[in-house]
Amino acid sequence: MIDTQKTANFPATGQSRVVIEQVSPELDGGRFPIKAIPGDVIAVEADVFADGHDYLSVRLLYRQADDTDWTEMSMALLGNDRWGASFVVEKQGRYHYTIEGWIDHLASWQHEIHLKIADGQRVISELLAGAQYVEGLVQRAGGLTKTAPKKGKSNAKKAAVPVEESADVTALRTMAALFRAGAESAADGAYDEAISVAESDQFTFYANRYPERQYATRYTVLGVEVDRARAGFSTWYCLFPRSAAWEEGAHGTFRDVEKLLPRISEMGFDVLYLPPIHPIGTAHRKGKNNSVVCQPGDPGVPYGIGSAEGGHDAIHAELGTVEGFKHLIAIAANYGMEVAMDLAIQCSPDHPWATEHPDWFKKRPDGTIQYAENPPKKYQDIYPVYFETDDWQNLWNELKRVLLVWAEWGVRIVRVDNPHTKPFGFWEWVIAEVKKEFPDMLFLAEAFTKPKVMQELAKGGFAHSYTYFTWRNTKAELEEYMTELTQSNGRPDAMKYYFRPNFWPTTHDINPYSLQSGHEPQFLIRYFLAATLSSNYGIYGPSFELMEHVPFPNKEEYLNSEKYEIRYWDWEKTNKMMYLIGLTNRIRHENAALQTTSNITFCQVSDDAIMAYVKASGDNKLLIVVNTDAYNRRAATVQVPIWQLGIYPDQPYTVHDLLTGAYYTWQGESNYVELDPYVLPMHLFRIEM
Amino acid sequence: MIDTQKTANFPATGQSRVVIEQVSPELDGGRFPIKAIPGDVIAVEADVFADGHDYLSVRLLYRQADDTDWTEMSMALLGNDRWGASFVVEKQGRYHYTIEGWIDHLASWQHEIHLKIADGQRVISELLAGAQYVEGLVQRAGGLTKTAPKKGKSNAKKAAVPVEESADVTALRTMAALFRAGAESAADGAYDEAISVAESDQFTFYANRYPERQYATRYTVLGVEVDRARAGFSTWYCLFPRSAAWEEGAHGTFRDVEKLLPRISEMGFDVLYLPPIHPIGTAHRKGKNNSVVCQPGDPGVPYGIGSAEGGHDAIHAELGTVEGFKHLIAIAANYGMEVAMDLAIQCSPDHPWATEHPDWFKKRPDGTIQYAENPPKKYQDIYPVYFETDDWQNLWNELKRVLLVWAEWGVRIVRVDNPHTKPFGFWEWVIAEVKKEFPDMLFLAEAFTKPKVMQELAKGGFAHSYTYFTWRNTKAELEEYMTELTQSNGRPDAMKYYFRPNFWPTTHDINPYSLQSGHEPQFLIRYFLAATLSSNYGIYGPSFELMEHVPFPNKEEYLNSEKYEIRYWDWEKTNKMMYLIGLTNRIRHENAALQTTSNITFCQVSDDAIMAYVKASGDNKLLIVVNTDAYNRRAATVQVPIWQLGIYPDQPYTVHDLLTGAYYTWQGESNYVELDPYVLPMHLFRIEM
Repeated sequence: MIDTQKTANFPATGQSRVVIEQVSPELDGGRFPIKAIPGDVIAVEADVFADGHDYLSVRLLYRQADDTDWTEMSMALLGNDRWGASFVVEKQGRYHYTIEGWIDHLASWQHEIHLKIADGQRVISELLAGAQYVEGLVQRAGGLTKTAPKKGKSNAKKAAVPVEESADVTALRTMAALFRAGAESAADGAYDEAISVAESDQFTFYANRYPERQYATRYTVLGVEVDRARAGFSTWYCLFPRSAAWEEGAHGTFRDVEKLLPRISEMGFDVLYLPPIHPIGTAHRKGKNNSVVCQPGDPGVPYGIGSAEGGHDAIHAELGTVEGFKHLIAIAANYGMEVAMDLAIQCSPDHPWATEHPDWFKKRPDGTIQYAENPPKKYQDIYPVYFETDDWQNLWNELKRVLLVWAEWGVRIVRVDNPHTKPFGFWEWVIAEVKKEFPDMLFLAEAFTKPKVMQELAKGGFAHSYTYFTWRNTKAELEEYMTELTQSNGRPDAMKYYFRPNFWPTTHDINPYSLQSGHEPQFLIRYFLAATLSSNYGIYGPSFELMEHVPFPNKEEYLNSEKYEIRYWDWEKTNKMMYLIGLTNRIRHENAALQTTSNITFCQVSDDAIMAYVKASGDNKLLIVVNTDAYNRRAATVQVPIWQLGIYPDQPYTVHDLLTGAYYTWQGESNYVELDPYVLPMHLFRIEM
Repeated sequence: MIDTQKTANFPATGQSRVVIEQVSPELDGGRFPIKAIPGDVIAVEADVFADGHDYLSVRLLYRQADDTDWTEMSMALLGNDRWGASFVVEKQGRYHYTIEGWIDHLASWQHEIHLKIADGQRVISELLAGAQYVEGLVQRAGGLTKTAPKKGKSNAKKAAVPVEESADVTALRTMAALFRAGAESAADGAYDEAISVAESDQFTFYANRYPERQYATRYTVLGVEVDRARAGFSTWYCLFPRSAAWEEGAHGTFRDVEKLLPRISEMGFDVLYLPPIHPIGTAHRKGKNNSVVCQPGDPGVPYGIGSAEGGHDAIHAELGTVEGFKHLIAIAANYGMEVAMDLAIQCSPDHPWATEHPDWFKKRPDGTIQYAENPPKKYQDIYPVYFETDDWQNLWNELKRVLLVWAEWGVRIVRVDNPHTKPFGFWEWVIAEVKKEFPDMLFLAEAFTKPKVMQELAKGGFAHSYTYFTWRNTKAELEEYMTELTQSNGRPDAMKYYFRPNFWPTTHDINPYSLQSGHEPQFLIRYFLAATLSSNYGIYGPSFELMEHVPFPNKEEYLNSEKYEIRYWDWEKTNKMMYLIGLTNRIRHENAALQTTSNITFCQVSDDAIMAYVKASGDNKLLIVVNTDAYNRRAATVQVPIWQLGIYPDQPYTVHDLLTGAYYTWQGESNYVELDPYVLPMHLFRIEM
């Protein structure tokens, strides 16, 4: 009857009937891991279904990448064939997760006899079938160590003790006998007892503990990269060490920076980010304000890296020595701060690589190295590295070596300058390689570029990313952008799963038009939004504190930028901005709700400039209200999402302004706010019951 | 300098810089093909980007699966790193498509010199670099046959002629020399000429014709299953052949069906679908109205397949013989009609498989075969096939063999009964296997079940799918459902790409509550919606024509259903429904806009029961207006999307009702309609300028 000529092309899994699809979170089919920090809950969902009407057993499997055993948990049917379950990533490192599903014949059987019994049928044949199922359980209970579902390692170890196995086996043998007796014995009592066990939770318990798992379908394995806690919550301070001197005219040193640590730490920062600290080239060195003519004594641009003194693995002598830098790192650690370095993959013409590895640079037809250009502009002081070189493996290795040297100095955070002008594949490789040896390492992508390029860098492994926050000013813009960053809207590859925003109101490269007025309330607003919308944020330290704002004409850059000259800052000065920074950072440290970014809910507000958002983490519930109009007092009604906060409509509650100490008693959803930008354009309410 | 201990883990493609993501259409990462019919335009989009600021070259590659060479076309940048291009699938069979991208150094170079020239720079070094690029073109032009982009096979053949190659090579050699002369000659004229060629379209032409394609990134290969035209446009008529007799009391035969062909064909149907025509079992045979007690003479249920006379590859003797069935197929073909068979994978206890292959059925504990159950109900006349059998390969092969037998009889369309109770993997395999030998074969999935199960069956290869249309009655429901079926809303796996709806107002299994009133206008509306919303639709022939509606009490089934008894139909009777069917089918055949389903745009209408939609295909533009309220005359203003139809606001246009012959002159967007369900509850306007 069977035509053996035509037996080809069978799938390996002809008896498997379960389909698993539309898993979330999932980035590019599992090509990239999602991101988390220890303690995060990973909520997984998937479409899981089969032909027919059988019950399914669907399990979420997860493990640390090095573990051989999966931890399993049952997924729950959410409706419309969508299943969900969550697991907690407890430790730093890579986790894996996947989903397995199979036809749950035992549950189907239990449901079937339940319906028949309710219909008054006598389920003799069914009890015998049940006995066969339970005999399967007996068998699987004998091989408990391998196949038993485990809730954690400690349980798994307990489960491996032979004594407990036997207890289960005994109980199951009894159950099988009971079913057979119920089917075969003339006595009504035996039948009734069998029925009652067949319908019991006890049966379900054993069925789930020793699942049949026949012809199971397992999904692709997906990844979670769990970074240390600072990846989720960090407060950055950018400082040019050469401008750290306490006396005007002096070249700042690492020792000067050390003297600033108490001040910076007291303001609540925990990452001190330094632009490049390597020897600066002299060939075509730029002068003040990016002038192509350099005056004698001009210190050059820290981004023009490399000279006879060395390249990316050397220290600019006027700042100090490698030992001095390590000392700075150690002292900073005493203040709970880390030092972040700046990786700018580009060279001065004087960089050792230019002579030792001319192949790592693009050649012009005359054989000379191609300097940087942004036509028609020329940057003859910079040689870009040529990633299309045939010697790319040595180039990649050398860049990895540089990072390992930094790591050996004690650096665990690297801000990367313009990562979007180097190949994505390089970043993915180098970050993974460095984290193999230094798992604590975090990379911040300084990519102000097109959305998909920024997203791809984050997918490839950058722990933090600069964002468009710097140019999002109106309430509508901010709410739209925050929604994109923090909400999934059903996308399995939503940015919230892998892109950690790091908000900066300004940087040493960006003096945004919105702040060039120098208007103090505008500075306060921009600062406060960064510090409360994003758990990771930073400021371009001394410049921002002092609300520096004079632009290089018609550009979003600073006049007399520190990039091109040494600046003197008065470290003793104080102002309202510094007060707000110190206070806000203290509040951030004391309120868990500000230590994560995606826990945001925007409130309806009757005014189009007043923005209000709830940030909640467990019992810590904050309501933040900001007047984004820096010039006018505004009043509005804020709709508080009391349903989300667990407040009844008739229940008064206290909103406690952590910035001013004021208490207000509110009730219901609609409440009045009024914010005068010249007084203080924001509330930071803690909701207290 | 390089630590050779750490050179591991390099990607294969370190010099590749282009990323290709978010390709659309794409089903489950390419796991399944999308669907099309010959002549369809496949519009492909993708995110394609690289690091840096270089120009990209992005190409769409496609081919028939058997071809070795890809046809290429340039993709256009749509904005935000999204690229798009379309190709036409011309022939039946499987097509493949993918995307390739690389850094276009030549385009980047041309852009760079353009900016420099505009800036007044003298581009000597750049011209020399350009000469090197052109020398690369010369080289690649020498190997034209393999690497040249082709617009079609004929072009490719021309391109292979050596003479043409030489012409390109000569032109390119001249260009390279010109660039060198421009760079090196003292004469201004040579420089100017070189510049002018470098900026010319001629340069771009050759650069695209002989692309550098260095370190290109190629995406996964995706598929398109191109079915024959009838997959896109078909009109089905369901008939029980045993009820085809022209005289009351007689058992209908294939010869009786042949006599009906002129009538059915005249009404505009092109698929005649017959429920199972195999021998019917006698064990536990059901009587009238699904009675478990069968009276002598009861003919049984055609779905109780198999008896001593044979199983799925045999013909019920009272209908005729295999030869008679082949004759019916041949006569139907003369009328432009195909005969569709019904595959119900289930057996009467008398089916030969029950004795020859007891392993293909589930056993009860007592060793007997398990009959069908839907607890607490029992269907002792049916043995379901047990797909979890260890003998699944022989089972699958036998089912394939049955389909091949049918195909050899001449059948090319199969309606599958309850495919959702058999494994997805089986359907995917058997459809692919049968189509290898009979590529014309089309399968209709009769799965009225959960959305994701219906979608999965369509992904697995069913050309047509039954839908929820039968239970979508209000305007809001219909518009929402049609949107889900026909619009992508940015989803690369939208149903429109793979799920071909086949709308049925009723079936022999479903007498929907909405029609149990027997209200004629309601029948006319339901019919007309099916026939104009979906290019594929069908009716349960004689019953629907006569607006049969008496239900089996409290069920969506028919009283005295043909499934359980032989019915007599008066084939001479005519009525308004039959008139509308014939007219609508003629209009469907004459208007291309009704021959595809996704070309629909819903119009705003001021009434919540009047539904209006534009269907457009090239110059054929229809506006359909239906009053979904079968009981009340309704009037409303319809907003005609004149912008989409190419009509200016001040330009009068004619709407020609193809149902009544009436002409109306309309102008602008807002126009008045009034529909009386007792006269005719619909307009089918052709828009004529």
